[in-house]
Amino acid sequence: MALVVQKYGGTSVGSIERIKNVARRVIKTKRQGHQVIVVVSAMAGETDRLLELARQLAPQNRELNERELDVLVASGEQVSIALLAMAIETMGEKACSFLGHQVQVLTDNAHTRARIKKIDSDRIRQALADDRIVVVAGFQGIDERGNITTLGRGGSDTSAVAIAAGLQADVCEIYTDVDGIYTTDPNVCRRARKLARISYDEMLELASQGAKVLQIRSVEFAKKYAIPIHVRSSFSEVEGTLVCKEDKAMEKAIVSGIAYNKNEAKITIHGVPDRPGVAAAIFSAIAERGIVVDMIIQNVSADNSTDLTFTVPKDDFQRSLEIVSGICREIGAENVAGDEHVAKVSIVGIGMRTHANVASRMFAALARENINIQMISTSEIKVSCVVEDKYTELAVRVLHDEFQLDRELAQEEE
Amino acid sequence: MALVVQKYGGTSVGSIERIKNVARRVIKTKRQGHQVIVVVSAMAGETDRLLELARQLAPQNRELNERELDVLVASGEQVSIALLAMAIETMGEKACSFLGHQVQVLTDNAHTRARIKKIDSDRIRQALADDRIVVVAGFQGIDERGNITTLGRGGSDTSAVAIAAGLQADVCEIYTDVDGIYTTDPNVCRRARKLARISYDEMLELASQGAKVLQIRSVEFAKKYAIPIHVRSSFSEVEGTLVCKEDKAMEKAIVSGIAYNKNEAKITIHGVPDRPGVAAAIFSAIAERGIVVDMIIQNVSADNSTDLTFTVPKDDFQRSLEIVSGICREIGAENVAGDEHVAKVSIVGIGMRTHANVASRMFAALARENINIQMISTSEIKVSCVVEDKYTELAVRVLHDEFQLDRELAQEEE
Repeated sequence: MALVVQKYGGTSVGSIERIKNVARRVIKTKRQGHQVIVVVSAMAGETDRLLELARQLAPQNRELNERELDVLVASGEQVSIALLAMAIETMGEKACSFLGHQVQVLTDNAHTRARIKKIDSDRIRQALADDRIVVVAGFQGIDERGNITTLGRGGSDTSAVAIAAGLQADVCEIYTDVDGIYTTDPNVCRRARKLARISYDEMLELASQGAKVLQIRSVEFAKKYAIPIHVRSSFSEVEGTLVCKEDKAMEKAIVSGIAYNKNEAKITIHGVPDRPGVAAAIFSAIAERGIVVDMIIQNVSADNSTDLTFTVPKDDFQRSLEIVSGICREIGAENVAGDEHVAKVSIVGIGMRTHANVASRMFAALARENINIQMISTSEIKVSCVVEDKYTELAVRVLHDEFQLDRELAQEEE
Repeated sequence: MALVVQKYGGTSVGSIERIKNVARRVIKTKRQGHQVIVVVSAMAGETDRLLELARQLAPQNRELNERELDVLVASGEQVSIALLAMAIETMGEKACSFLGHQVQVLTDNAHTRARIKKIDSDRIRQALADDRIVVVAGFQGIDERGNITTLGRGGSDTSAVAIAAGLQADVCEIYTDVDGIYTTDPNVCRRARKLARISYDEMLELASQGAKVLQIRSVEFAKKYAIPIHVRSSFSEVEGTLVCKEDKAMEKAIVSGIAYNKNEAKITIHGVPDRPGVAAAIFSAIAERGIVVDMIIQNVSADNSTDLTFTVPKDDFQRSLEIVSGICREIGAENVAGDEHVAKVSIVGIGMRTHANVASRMFAALARENINIQMISTSEIKVSCVVEDKYTELAVRVLHDEFQLDRELAQEEE
């Protein structure tokens, strides 16, 4: 008997028929002799419907109270857990639903983007011991004062993995509308190939670089607590992709996947005085406003001043420009330039650690297509390039070919 | 400075525009120098939408899990409190929403029809002290184990009054889509007149007998804690009806209101053996199934057997028939007959206590129209008659005329 956590996304519970399908699937697992905890998202479209209601309240784009936004959107998961629990019961198995405050999923108080601090698993264990299928609302938690919090888009993945970790589950299955992790977005590159396995670190990099299948935080949790994540389709029985600890076989693949992110914008500050504390002043001002800076590049100094370039999410571009413009005056920088027409393309693979020349092969491949590289950022298992956004898809395809990602044998069974 | 509880029903918060109206109204009260707690229902239609989703899960009318039904429908109020709190904030006042489990509204564990046991008002007081408008989800609470409960249709009224009682508010204003309590349903009798004031006891009887403006339990709470309820329209500034302690002036009205209830069905058991314990056997079996029996009439015994007639809600008719048929065999009764085509018409007034002949005037008025009375039930301030349901509206109009309920002077200012 295993303890299995299954997470179903919004599409998988998007209608009563689909909820019934999920119920059947969950029951099947239960009847195979396992204990099952199901984590669900809101029905597809529901979160957007709720946010649209909120948006109608603030036509001048005045900021809405985030505590109340969390109360609002958390209702979406409440609907789906109740419906799923009822569906399971009508099919003859015992079920019990839990909201974030019932489990409890304790988070910090950063509304709309809270982080899970602790899972109190007592009530879940009781319900499991009572032979019930446990249905938990994803995406939501409570802070220490009992306020409802939400974990941000994709937060249900994190809920599922955190619960799997909290209960030391054997596996966390993430059911979604795709059947696994691909070498890249199949909509962009038709030669994209489904991976049988991928390491936590690669998955983290792919998610960070724009792959949208799993929320980053969920992979961090899974890695920290060594919970295998099985990403698979809720609409078929096909095996998906296992996100797990790396092993020798994985290292043979130089590049495991290619991610891209069009939701980036670039800001360059020219003539930044080259003295201690200047970068801190700029980036702490941005961070204080909750804006997440991605890449930062600073050239070597000339004439006691330097150029500083960084990227932010497109949605935060205008706000970032305003903040930076203000600071530039304070610190005496020359001027600020912004560019929204950029995208980031990244190659990821733990094999990079042991293979030289990966970055240069990437640059050369892009150069052959006359794609100019505006910024470069690397980690041990990743190389990212910022390019003009119109080249995004081309760049992905070129790199997919360059590193022969369509070939399975060469990478996973050699 | 007064502490005012305002409750807005589903129609009053049925759209974003209406939620904004409520926000303006609430803020107006706040700016008049009062502390305001707002209790809201789900947006009109939302509870039905959710129940319809649930119904799709159980096409064969299999009973749905009531704990999960409560989780499902409680989400409706969650949406409206969040939207209202945000609306208030965008208009420049501070607000804070609370769910049943946050307040806390502690109830028993009778899912879908729970009763409030206790209001823990600490968090509300804190928020009020912090100069906030407090927005509370009506209709919902939690039981001692932290399960979500709901109070049954109209439960938000009870939430509002219970919170008013718990916080010793000066008044509980119930905003609805009618502008007060009428002598009878204006849709049935166009001479129906709005009452300026009505006593708790009369309101209780009217609500029990079918008037739908206030949930009975809310009036019981109001009476117990002497909270005046002001029933008024959310769409106008007109004064509504004050439900309050009775006084001399009220007693002058022999009849204050006429209620009717078409949601009744009648069951007669013929030839019930006349021995101790038989009635108990019948009615405890029905009560165990959660069916609420209204009127019970037993004729004097003849030949050691008697006839027993009682009414139940129409929805419970078939179930009741089945239960009773089973018991009849056990206790050796002759047979069971049912009739769904009945309605109950009731006259209510504290003046009855001091006026003779009220019942006989009622019977005579009905007789003049050839309306046959099938069952009669009385209390100190009420007379109810069960009649064939096709006569319902006629009976109401006849009685409205008989007791001159259209005349204000005679009753309230004499």
